[in-house]
Amino acid sequence: MANVGILGAGSWGTALSILLSDNGHQVTVWSIDKEEVKMLQTKREHTAKLPGVRLPESMVITGNLEEGIRDKDFLVLAVPSPFTRVTAKKMRPYVKEGQIIVDVAKGIEETTLMTLSQQIEQEIPQADVAVLSGPSHAEEVGRKLPTTCVIGAKSKQTAIFLQSMFISRVFRVYISPDILGIELGGALKNVIALAAGIADGLGYGDNTKAALITRGIAEIARLGVKMGGKIESFTGLTGIGDLIVTCASVHSRNRKAGYLIGQGKSMQEAMDEVKMVVEGVYSAKAAKQLALKYDVSMPIVEQVNAVLFEGKAPAQAVDELMQRASKSESEQLPWEN
Amino acid sequence: MANVGILGAGSWGTALSILLSDNGHQVTVWSIDKEEVKMLQTKREHTAKLPGVRLPESMVITGNLEEGIRDKDFLVLAVPSPFTRVTAKKMRPYVKEGQIIVDVAKGIEETTLMTLSQQIEQEIPQADVAVLSGPSHAEEVGRKLPTTCVIGAKSKQTAIFLQSMFISRVFRVYISPDILGIELGGALKNVIALAAGIADGLGYGDNTKAALITRGIAEIARLGVKMGGKIESFTGLTGIGDLIVTCASVHSRNRKAGYLIGQGKSMQEAMDEVKMVVEGVYSAKAAKQLALKYDVSMPIVEQVNAVLFEGKAPAQAVDELMQRASKSESEQLPWEN
Repeated sequence: MANVGILGAGSWGTALSILLSDNGHQVTVWSIDKEEVKMLQTKREHTAKLPGVRLPESMVITGNLEEGIRDKDFLVLAVPSPFTRVTAKKMRPYVKEGQIIVDVAKGIEETTLMTLSQQIEQEIPQADVAVLSGPSHAEEVGRKLPTTCVIGAKSKQTAIFLQSMFISRVFRVYISPDILGIELGGALKNVIALAAGIADGLGYGDNTKAALITRGIAEIARLGVKMGGKIESFTGLTGIGDLIVTCASVHSRNRKAGYLIGQGKSMQEAMDEVKMVVEGVYSAKAAKQLALKYDVSMPIVEQVNAVLFEGKAPAQAVDELMQRASKSESEQLPWEN
Repeated sequence: MANVGILGAGSWGTALSILLSDNGHQVTVWSIDKEEVKMLQTKREHTAKLPGVRLPESMVITGNLEEGIRDKDFLVLAVPSPFTRVTAKKMRPYVKEGQIIVDVAKGIEETTLMTLSQQIEQEIPQADVAVLSGPSHAEEVGRKLPTTCVIGAKSKQTAIFLQSMFISRVFRVYISPDILGIELGGALKNVIALAAGIADGLGYGDNTKAALITRGIAEIARLGVKMGGKIESFTGLTGIGDLIVTCASVHSRNRKAGYLIGQGKSMQEAMDEVKMVVEGVYSAKAAKQLALKYDVSMPIVEQVNAVLFEGKAPAQAVDELMQRASKSESEQLPWEN
């Protein structure tokens, strides 16, 4: 049994806190939101974000950050990506040397183009930062439906330790040394989910969507490998797997916002209607900057940016993707004749 | 303008005949089924398999095989996989030296473990055999929704020629030299579609399905690369792309049969209810034999076979996939520490 601190009580943080409790660990969940803390303490259920799933009685809920961090065998950082750096900064004084922190959010900082683990390492240099990612709707993990994830860590020892903490009968955990590839796949997939949503909104079918998903992961992989990520991550659970689950989901905010844009709404109207942060909108900007910086061709990212920020008609954007000079699917493969 | 012969008037043959007609080519469609020939000639629509899509007046429909083959710039072979060899045998006397034949069906012969293009080459040694594959529901191509495919050919010249024949504003065509990889991906994906259907039938969610798709293409790729296919095909449109479209589709017979099995029906009951050939059932057997022959671990293929042919309970099969010894996602990636 381990002592675990979970920082952030959104749907994913809550689902993982229940998984880890069920695995026999002593879990303390911290939230910055006083009302959320009170609600979780009294109702023992996250009625807004994970309705119908009971919190075990043993789970401690706190609004005190230090209590969430001190004397823990590992920490799970589950705050939304725009709050990762500021939360890490506040955590720093309480974090011991070599403390394992698993980040479970996804995103790229627009101003610095840094991944979340890079931001955490910058703010908490004494930490051993790992990541957990994969095709995993929180609602389904909460309902104990079979799910697979990948733990990325710098040392195999940390990876195996974390794997043994998270793994269960319905939660299969693989390990990987490729933290960067895992994080890039997770962050950039939201841009492709927006594109898939736009195609759905235009009334296009499964053929178009499958093409966008497949070509989308190919352009993410081109960029990611050039940045130092491994191709295996982009073709694996944290790359194509996560992209598939996001594009198939009626719950994904990114897909939903894309759908509304495909139906003719502006970006602002779509974001207002979805009523939550649409990460893909920020990732789209970051992806475009990264494509420029690393000199990689990313036609889908380019068209999504044009639709979001330059008022391009969605149908014209898809049309231009279809009209691009016809090419070999992969430039690398040699011809016999 | 080219003269094209299409052999087989199922939904895919019909959709491609309309695409090629729309591209300005003179198309002759042959069917072995006299009633189908008559229906297409008089109604100018395939009411059973592609309802609502008109055949152009210029299109010739024939029951005479020689008329479908003679003096054509290229042939499209669109008969279901179990009829590929016997049709090729009948075609042989009419086929000129160097005749380009594009096969558009998918499958592996159970007795010989040969792909369709290998069977065609054996029966018609004078032909230049190519393939066309990718995420492409015939119904959506018929409705002119944006679709992408890959042409695989032995020579780049043949590939570019065929690309120029098929490409249109809504049908984007890539080329590739990897005929074997394209064919293996297309045939073996049906086994994974069965598994995805079984998971759906059991009431599992998107997480489980995304995991099966991602790990499924990984095991197909392991086998395919060992057989000589290229990894790029398995991670591309004809591999993961086609698998995504099949697993997402409510029309896929393979997914449907799996769904019924997941709900507790036997394989025979499921096949009776689907009322058509469920290719994945045959591909499952072939895949298992290939896994043995090439000494490749294929846990999903193994479990699908156990469910189909050994009466194993579907829930137990999924459970065993989840319980397998936890491993690195990819054995190849090195650890720093």
